[in-house]
Amino acid sequence: MRRPDPHSCPADPRAGTVYLVGAGPGDPGLLTLRAADLLAAATVVFHDYLVSDGVLAHCAPAARRVDVGKVGHGPQTAQGAIEALLMDAARAGEIVVRLKGGDPLLFGRGAEEALALAAAGIPFEIVPGVSSALAVPAAAGIPVTARGIATSVAIVTGHSLAGGPAPIPQADTIVVLMGVASAAAIRDQLIATGVAADTPAAAIEWGTCPAQRIVTGSLADLPERIAREQLGAPAILVIGQVVGLRDRLVRRAEAATPLAAWQH
Amino acid sequence: MRRPDPHSCPADPRAGTVYLVGAGPGDPGLLTLRAADLLAAATVVFHDYLVSDGVLAHCAPAARRVDVGKVGHGPQTAQGAIEALLMDAARAGEIVVRLKGGDPLLFGRGAEEALALAAAGIPFEIVPGVSSALAVPAAAGIPVTARGIATSVAIVTGHSLAGGPAPIPQADTIVVLMGVASAAAIRDQLIATGVAADTPAAAIEWGTCPAQRIVTGSLADLPERIAREQLGAPAILVIGQVVGLRDRLVRRAEAATPLAAWQH
Repeated sequence: MRRPDPHSCPADPRAGTVYLVGAGPGDPGLLTLRAADLLAAATVVFHDYLVSDGVLAHCAPAARRVDVGKVGHGPQTAQGAIEALLMDAARAGEIVVRLKGGDPLLFGRGAEEALALAAAGIPFEIVPGVSSALAVPAAAGIPVTARGIATSVAIVTGHSLAGGPAPIPQADTIVVLMGVASAAAIRDQLIATGVAADTPAAAIEWGTCPAQRIVTGSLADLPERIAREQLGAPAILVIGQVVGLRDRLVRRAEAATPLAAWQH
Repeated sequence: MRRPDPHSCPADPRAGTVYLVGAGPGDPGLLTLRAADLLAAATVVFHDYLVSDGVLAHCAPAARRVDVGKVGHGPQTAQGAIEALLMDAARAGEIVVRLKGGDPLLFGRGAEEALALAAAGIPFEIVPGVSSALAVPAAAGIPVTARGIATSVAIVTGHSLAGGPAPIPQADTIVVLMGVASAAAIRDQLIATGVAADTPAAAIEWGTCPAQRIVTGSLADLPERIAREQLGAPAILVIGQVVGLRDRLVRRAEAATPLAAWQH
């Protein structure tokens, strides 16, 4: 087996280029080194509403920061407006960072932005990030895979289709991003396709952040538990036997801060 | 919607604690800030064979580095031996980093190590990493989701079961870690369960690293293309319509370095 050349030399940030950068799940410590370097070099940063202040603290003081979660109204209008902003800034010779929560190409319309930039001939680079789909369960004490318990993971979003969740693959562990609003529809679909009603399930609000809250139960009663605790967006659902490992892994989870939840 | 407290204050690295840290997919720029801090503080680092030298360069000069890919012989022996090494080092008062490729809890037996530490009463902390399952396709020009094309992703491993790949969920995009050796069995299973033989598919060897190589084709002919190009481990398979987006996103992929493959 060949080993790769250890001397990676990423290009210096370049004027006129758009960097599609993953901000990670929320905890500023989960930003990548490359993302931190690009934020420090950027002259303008277009970020989602959910990107945390701790991550944005890596921006240069003189950089312009634009919260594009507030651009436009309808989702389609906003998306076109965001793409136009990115292109205009690149053509003006700025070092442009488009900062997206989690990983830039896992949902969140990152692929659309990349395709639009490619079609327009704007130079761009993708910088993968720590995905909320894996890191939020981990910070809550739930490994998405475990030998002998779960050897497949499916990731879907509760927002995939306007009319409800898209068909959900039958994996050992199912992670639903943006899942609280459609938790009941997801439960009904999974039970209808044969998933046991007593499968362990969890909902995690503001995962990896100090405000993190977790609700656990069964697939059948998760929507009611979410409602009782008034969990809201941003939140992730995890459904599968791995949720049952949490008690063995976390001793003081409710009292602890997110990553420290694993310390005992 | 509440916003999280932006002031995350992760605990300083502590003697007697084991940090289960994700090293990311290979590119040292995709290490997290928290991982870099912990590597700099660690007195001993137990790492997998595939962790790149560029990542290990973050270790303190005086730190002891142990390549646990070389411990023991059978997988079960090695796993028990690794867990014993982690516990012994923690009990001796070291700052212990267990550095695993990608994300520490997505396959790779990270959950087993965490459960063993919890059962033994050893303090530990999980530090999520950039997963190869998402970052390797991205660096090769393949977004795993795209609006209207793929709204679900399944992640499996070709090594899940000794007798062949585990049942593969029917997601829009299927990512197989450690997939080259079982590529033909995976193809046969997917076609038998109704996936179209002409579904676009790719294999990526040494993803995100300078040695990265990519083969694309259809689900039907991917195993033969892998054999013809002599792709070997470590490699990832991607199966789904999103593979077809690569031509629109990457203009000079074969000639470019991995992340720069997105630059044009």
